[in-house]
Amino acid sequence: MAVNRRQDILNAATQSFSLFGYKATTMDQVAKLASVGKGTIYTFFANKEELFNEIITKLIADMQQKATGVIVPGEKFQDNVHHALVEMLDFRRDHQLMIKLIQEQRDIGTPIVNNVLDKVEESILTFIRDKIEIAIQRGEIKKCDPDIFAYIILVTYISLIFDWEKSREPLSKEEIAEIFQTYIFNGLSLR
Amino acid sequence: MAVNRRQDILNAATQSFSLFGYKATTMDQVAKLASVGKGTIYTFFANKEELFNEIITKLIADMQQKATGVIVPGEKFQDNVHHALVEMLDFRRDHQLMIKLIQEQRDIGTPIVNNVLDKVEESILTFIRDKIEIAIQRGEIKKCDPDIFAYIILVTYISLIFDWEKSREPLSKEEIAEIFQTYIFNGLSLR
Repeated sequence: MAVNRRQDILNAATQSFSLFGYKATTMDQVAKLASVGKGTIYTFFANKEELFNEIITKLIADMQQKATGVIVPGEKFQDNVHHALVEMLDFRRDHQLMIKLIQEQRDIGTPIVNNVLDKVEESILTFIRDKIEIAIQRGEIKKCDPDIFAYIILVTYISLIFDWEKSREPLSKEEIAEIFQTYIFNGLSLR
Repeated sequence: MAVNRRQDILNAATQSFSLFGYKATTMDQVAKLASVGKGTIYTFFANKEELFNEIITKLIADMQQKATGVIVPGEKFQDNVHHALVEMLDFRRDHQLMIKLIQEQRDIGTPIVNNVLDKVEESILTFIRDKIEIAIQRGEIKKCDPDIFAYIILVTYISLIFDWEKSREPLSKEEIAEIFQTYIFNGLSLR
């Protein structure tokens, strides 16, 4: 019973955050949506921030699970990273709560929303960083700073997936994989 | 006499756009700042947009001149591109009118300001693209799509100069040059 109520509250809060954003969501609203008294919420969560954090922790875990799902052990580093990144960036773009939070960050800049979006980015970076470390150990790629390489990979992907097409022909996922392979992974140096 | 007046108007408009942005600048304000009648402005410029475009064309030319000034003929492609990019991004960051326009784009999203900032970005891309084409001809780098490579270089530089340090130790210009050399130009592939 308590488990169900707790889950009802989390579902209601997710719905409210997705519709109205973090700032405009009130505990009253959540209580109404969950059909529980406001007091009941406080037996499970100390405040709105705690409720939000639990939802985001779950969201990040879901995203990481999706990314892990496309990793094929033994496949090439760049193929695995490509598939995982496409999965995580698609998730970030299509998930209703993420869309609302990105919008709230842009329009209001609510500090806790900024923190949460940084956490989402950090979790994507951690995921890629792990794959880089494994690839170094396996001798698949040169020794390098995994933090910097993960950052360059993420930034390039975000730009090619979302920004490039603002004023140009969109690139397919296959083209982006090939660009990563040619321009970043192999490098263009001849001398 | 007419030449001086024209230049006075351009100076006054630059001052007003830098202080108040494009949207909040009026022809009355420019006339006042230039100490000319409003009618005089219209003998030189059809409207505020024409005035703005002339100022931006000059600004882009100034930026390109700064970048050209640090190019050393015969020096390595990656060194020349590094110096020119640092020059152009510094210019973009430190120039009062650019600062105001970037702020106006973020806060209001005035369409003509968006167009103008796209033009500035396009001029940086054109500059790098030219250097890439020369480097391909000289056999310094592999054959590639100069549009895509220029875009990847610009995106990486902007991220490493401006975004990286939001939550991490800033990187020096030398570090950024080395990162570009190692992670992008040489590539990390071992297989």
